[in-house]
Amino acid sequence: MTERIPRRRPGRPRGAKSGDTRARILAAATEEFGERGYEAASMRAIARRAGVDPALVHHYFDDKQHLVTEVVEVPLQPDRLVAGALDGPLDGLGDRLVRAVVTAWDSATVRPAAVAALRSAIGQGPVSRMLREFLRREIMHRIAEHLDEPDAELRAELAASQLVGVIMVRYVLEFEPVASLPTDELVARVGPSVQWHLTGRPPGS
Amino acid sequence: MTERIPRRRPGRPRGAKSGDTRARILAAATEEFGERGYEAASMRAIARRAGVDPALVHHYFDDKQHLVTEVVEVPLQPDRLVAGALDGPLDGLGDRLVRAVVTAWDSATVRPAAVAALRSAIGQGPVSRMLREFLRREIMHRIAEHLDEPDAELRAELAASQLVGVIMVRYVLEFEPVASLPTDELVARVGPSVQWHLTGRPPGS
Repeated sequence: MTERIPRRRPGRPRGAKSGDTRARILAAATEEFGERGYEAASMRAIARRAGVDPALVHHYFDDKQHLVTEVVEVPLQPDRLVAGALDGPLDGLGDRLVRAVVTAWDSATVRPAAVAALRSAIGQGPVSRMLREFLRREIMHRIAEHLDEPDAELRAELAASQLVGVIMVRYVLEFEPVASLPTDELVARVGPSVQWHLTGRPPGS
Repeated sequence: MTERIPRRRPGRPRGAKSGDTRARILAAATEEFGERGYEAASMRAIARRAGVDPALVHHYFDDKQHLVTEVVEVPLQPDRLVAGALDGPLDGLGDRLVRAVVTAWDSATVRPAAVAALRSAIGQGPVSRMLREFLRREIMHRIAEHLDEPDAELRAELAASQLVGVIMVRYVLEFEPVASLPTDELVARVGPSVQWHLTGRPPGS
């Protein structure tokens, strides 16, 4: 049973019905992206999952890149996540970043979209490039801006490398014991490593 | 122009001719895997690239999983790589692991196959499962065995998380400045973080 496309009009559709349809398309897109990856997923398959006309998917989200942005940004809210962690003394930033990342990814709503995003960022193609830029802009630059160091960009990237590595082992490869380690223990183990990258003094520097 | 399949016989083929064909198939497989990923690549397409009959590919390598193992293990030699790094005092192990990983991945012969392997390990399917097991067995267990700690498995996994994160940022996402950082500087920056995971004393432990 598919839903007919409404007359095309500028701006967001109004009313509870439209909101439901939009949410249903988003949920279907999250599933499709999670199973097939962003590059392989099609607007047609998303429409089929949501039980709506493909033109309706385009009506709400224009194209696949817009849909990807919504699926990744809305549940993950990387800007808020990083902003929250940055708020506080610099010497606890490593711990706060690990806690923020782990808390977000542990959530059942965020995880499928986030894993799909990571898989796609690693791939090739336009969506992959978009996700990489997003990572740089939303995560690394924000952290770098916060550091009062001449090598702030390098430090932020290396801190991100540790965070990405933990995400890979815990959520993508799902290796035990890291996959089931309680958040507090993970923070105690990985926070100092992230902190080292942010504010440590490497030999010869 | 395709090469005819020789009579099927047990064991490895002998002679320079066979060696060339085998090497040509391996080179073609590395290219195909690099471009399409291990899951999407087909034995038929590899045969086409190598200019040989598909049956010849099966003759030398049985199935795709065997071919993947050769493409990943032969250039990367993860067992030698880890064994080399393990040889020496424990307090320099972090530095040696970073140096071994970066030196291997910086090599132009290793990199395409290694990036393809990482992309596939992150994916879903039988090859992905095989690569994950390989990572656990060849890398993490060997490091864990070397540590005289009750939480050796966890420490080895967290050390691997930092190494995987650096590989992601430097070779897969190719973010600057990490992508172009000289090896010595990368060792000085990341070695202490890996060492922390191996032998550090986290708060409350």
